[in-house]
Amino acid sequence: MQDIGAKAKAAARPLAMASPEQKNTALLAMADALDASKDAILAANALDMQAGQEAGLAPSFLDRLLLNDDRIAAMAHGLRDVAGLKDPVGEVITEWDRPNGLHIERVRTPLGVIGVIYESRPNVTADAGALCLKAGNAVILRGGSDSVHSSRAIHASMVEGLKAAGLPETAIQLVPVTDRAAVGALLSGLGGTVDVIVPRGGKSLVARVQAEARVPVFSHLEGICHVYVDASADLEMAKKIVVNAKMRRTGICGSAETLLVDSAALGTHLQPLLEALTEAGCEVRASATVLKVLPFFKPAQEEDWRTEYLDAIISVAIVDGVGGAISHIAHYSSNHTEAVIAEDPAVVERFFNEVDSAIVLHNASTQFADGGEFGMGGEIGIATGKMHARGPVGVEQLTSFKYRVRGTGQIRP
Amino acid sequence: MQDIGAKAKAAARPLAMASPEQKNTALLAMADALDASKDAILAANALDMQAGQEAGLAPSFLDRLLLNDDRIAAMAHGLRDVAGLKDPVGEVITEWDRPNGLHIERVRTPLGVIGVIYESRPNVTADAGALCLKAGNAVILRGGSDSVHSSRAIHASMVEGLKAAGLPETAIQLVPVTDRAAVGALLSGLGGTVDVIVPRGGKSLVARVQAEARVPVFSHLEGICHVYVDASADLEMAKKIVVNAKMRRTGICGSAETLLVDSAALGTHLQPLLEALTEAGCEVRASATVLKVLPFFKPAQEEDWRTEYLDAIISVAIVDGVGGAISHIAHYSSNHTEAVIAEDPAVVERFFNEVDSAIVLHNASTQFADGGEFGMGGEIGIATGKMHARGPVGVEQLTSFKYRVRGTGQIRP
Repeated sequence: MQDIGAKAKAAARPLAMASPEQKNTALLAMADALDASKDAILAANALDMQAGQEAGLAPSFLDRLLLNDDRIAAMAHGLRDVAGLKDPVGEVITEWDRPNGLHIERVRTPLGVIGVIYESRPNVTADAGALCLKAGNAVILRGGSDSVHSSRAIHASMVEGLKAAGLPETAIQLVPVTDRAAVGALLSGLGGTVDVIVPRGGKSLVARVQAEARVPVFSHLEGICHVYVDASADLEMAKKIVVNAKMRRTGICGSAETLLVDSAALGTHLQPLLEALTEAGCEVRASATVLKVLPFFKPAQEEDWRTEYLDAIISVAIVDGVGGAISHIAHYSSNHTEAVIAEDPAVVERFFNEVDSAIVLHNASTQFADGGEFGMGGEIGIATGKMHARGPVGVEQLTSFKYRVRGTGQIRP
Repeated sequence: MQDIGAKAKAAARPLAMASPEQKNTALLAMADALDASKDAILAANALDMQAGQEAGLAPSFLDRLLLNDDRIAAMAHGLRDVAGLKDPVGEVITEWDRPNGLHIERVRTPLGVIGVIYESRPNVTADAGALCLKAGNAVILRGGSDSVHSSRAIHASMVEGLKAAGLPETAIQLVPVTDRAAVGALLSGLGGTVDVIVPRGGKSLVARVQAEARVPVFSHLEGICHVYVDASADLEMAKKIVVNAKMRRTGICGSAETLLVDSAALGTHLQPLLEALTEAGCEVRASATVLKVLPFFKPAQEEDWRTEYLDAIISVAIVDGVGGAISHIAHYSSNHTEAVIAEDPAVVERFFNEVDSAIVLHNASTQFADGGEFGMGGEIGIATGKMHARGPVGVEQLTSFKYRVRGTGQIRP
């Protein structure tokens, strides 16, 4: 592993200097290689799927593991999309002049070496590799043991693309899954060679990474996302958004887990909202106040407010206006994404100012919490920390910056 | 200490909501309180100075510890300067529209709770407290035991200012210096309450913080800053800049430690540059190649290239053009600040692109590596890491951000 770290650090320097054209040549060649290697990738994936079925893995896990023609085409398409993104390296973020004539620019630079630890989805091999490369970073990928053959086959196409562009093959390295100490070694930072770790997977993986990493981590442990419906909300809009926020896909981190309804909307909004959810096939777990009005739901326990169901279940509470919603969210939220449905602009501004989450939305579904939906052209993950990256982590968030100062002989008095 | 952390976290919420006016009221009241408490502060400082003299502290240490009328006035002036800075909180950093009509803003927010660990300089109590407050952060200050009375007296004025503005007194807390486990507790993050640590002091303090902190750190271990003089350099300008970069103040992190001279300038620039340095009272430690031409200097050892002298000493090497300078810097630099003196624009661009330090300068002194000189209105320190903050850490770098998304009923298909 120390050798892998040293190779990544050595690759980071030429990568940082690589031109946008050279990086895009690599990305497009990777996409072509993926298309051309479809049969080999499917064969590798069949080995993983067979082993997974024999090991009795859950159907949802097997679904994430599965590759088919469409999914391979989507990976190749994703690589071409990343090639089409604006190159962040060298971008002047801001510039200004000083009274003494110095001209100062803050310019984007690569971060260096990024470690990505992931579980079942083999497509992360291509997605994460591409985003790191675009931002001029070397990457060390550590996939799950269940997807080892698939990841290896995809990685071979990535290396082909690097070679085609004359970039170091070690710019994208895949850690042998047989090395059981690899995760711990990565989390230690490989002797100062790894600049940041991105975990992609379930809560237990992320929790381990957050607890053990000795380098910065871009991650979210879970997405306990809230939708607050104010008494001023347009009811039809609220129904549509709440159902979408919860039910469009229940297994993603931007899915809503708790609905907060304004006490002033008890007689107007509550029942239609819960009917809409129930009709959509969602189980409702209701607070005592909700049950007083609509007694036919399952009662919510304290732990329901802290639970990311990732399923067709929602907890529902009545709150005392936007202030009550803000307090509930401050207490229970994972600071990922929260939405306010309201027509009163004062309510929206207060929610926007006082809710301390990575993403706050007005009159829109929480399921927009996604780098692609934000127009970032993909994401390596979503971060709920406050350092460096917050919210969707795209190519721009995979960069650092430096200052370039241009003078004409200035000395400091 | 856990109690101090909880109080800071509780104070962070109202601070994040505080208006620019309220924070500026506090800062101006702090400045007035400092002026009004001058005699008490001087009396407290006299106690520290006496104890320091009795303990046989070094004269340079005692000079940093000393307060007088001018230094107290400068602290108060600094607070008023910070009040005059643009408030970063709520600033829209960037905004864009999506094809589906969503409007996305990235908006500055406070970081939360900042821990500052410092040594002899009691003025850090005021400077760091003010910058953290301006950015809407609570701060936990841990000053050195040698400056305990001075820091306590200054802190009293800071608390007066907070009270005058109706802000929580716990927004700026000073850790009792009697608590010897305080530094370790701060470095552990106080149970998740501390968002970032800023160490201000010597190399051993910074090294300990970097090694032990379980939260992000903004710091630089040392400033091994280089000046490269290209054959295309204007000789008079180069002499002026090299002497200023080394000798203006030798004890600051932006002071130059190594001079790199282009081998093509051996006959033109080398001797005049070393004469200028020698005339300014600087000791030269020369590489073997320099000694072949000018044999009367002390030879540099390998460790000289790795040494931050913080003194009137400079190491000098001959390099093979800008490529050689870049290689030397990549090998020995602490990634703080490096300057290129050249008239050839291709040389400057290559230096700017390939030198991976927080600050690169062209035709200007390395001693401009300072938040005040950058126009940031002060700095809490200088960072050489690549995460979040790099270079001078001012109020803007003491913030995070969140996304505000405004919709009109959008749901995700």
